[in-house]
Amino acid sequence: MPEPAELLQNRLAYRGRKFDFTVDRLRLPNGAEGDWECIRHPGGALAVPVTRDGKLVLVYQYRFAIADRLLEFPAGTIEPGEDPQTTIEREIEEETGYRAQTWQALGKFPLAPGYSDEYIYAFLARDLDQLDTPPQQDDDEDLAVVLMTPADLEAAIQQKPESIDAKSIASYFLTRPYL
Amino acid sequence: MPEPAELLQNRLAYRGRKFDFTVDRLRLPNGAEGDWECIRHPGGALAVPVTRDGKLVLVYQYRFAIADRLLEFPAGTIEPGEDPQTTIEREIEEETGYRAQTWQALGKFPLAPGYSDEYIYAFLARDLDQLDTPPQQDDDEDLAVVLMTPADLEAAIQQKPESIDAKSIASYFLTRPYL
Repeated sequence: MPEPAELLQNRLAYRGRKFDFTVDRLRLPNGAEGDWECIRHPGGALAVPVTRDGKLVLVYQYRFAIADRLLEFPAGTIEPGEDPQTTIEREIEEETGYRAQTWQALGKFPLAPGYSDEYIYAFLARDLDQLDTPPQQDDDEDLAVVLMTPADLEAAIQQKPESIDAKSIASYFLTRPYL
Repeated sequence: MPEPAELLQNRLAYRGRKFDFTVDRLRLPNGAEGDWECIRHPGGALAVPVTRDGKLVLVYQYRFAIADRLLEFPAGTIEPGEDPQTTIEREIEEETGYRAQTWQALGKFPLAPGYSDEYIYAFLARDLDQLDTPPQQDDDEDLAVVLMTPADLEAAIQQKPESIDAKSIASYFLTRPYL
């Protein structure tokens, strides 16, 4: 271990803007064979931003996949060749209008390994300053900034987990020992 | 809110065994237009199983998407028309050889809303009995059962998040107040 699955055939089924979709014929370590569909993703970077008075900065964001809005930490797709911290330093400014002076890497975790190779690189972002002129948001984003205490976020997760996505819950848990 | 994105055109790009992949032309609530790729998934059900002496039951599972093994809570894809608890009662037996006497629903959360409509339905499973003759595992699964204390799992998440997937970290956090 780790043991590779044996790739018998691979096919790029769709080339997307931010990720590809592949269909692979594989033989697994246990000998089973089958077609496996997978999103091939460059990875995402996420910040848990904490203001100087201890509030968490989240975004309330429309997600077409579920046709609803979710509470999430600011995050973005890593550009080709980009360092994850560079990605999230840009995204936090675009999505929230805050710049962080202090960054702490919390590690990476796999988001949806049943059908995606995406890892989320999580960071704790502290010593936030509000930008006088925040950069323009991506025109496919439609979001509002929300400030919450850690206690309020924990209550929201426990009471309404359907309104917060997995990467945000997991990243909050990674951050918790440092808050 | 919630506001629907306006669907201008939709296309089934791939029909898979467990989920489909669609490419939709959408107009978002903010007026932006674009192609959006999405996995259309029936949902997943997950158990955080706790033995009578307080240990968590996880699986150490090969994941071809990342060509490595991960520590995860037992979980499975919901079959058409199936109740999530029925799914996970079956999966926990197949994957771990345990049957739970006591089930508690913890709610659902969206797994990867950037490109999937999958929700994970999380359950706390208690009063576990080991089956004398566990059902056969799916032949595409290749996994080992791992028992851990909550303290050990928390240490693993903090120190090696790359070895544990987002749904397992998030579900553990939902379970924590009840442990």
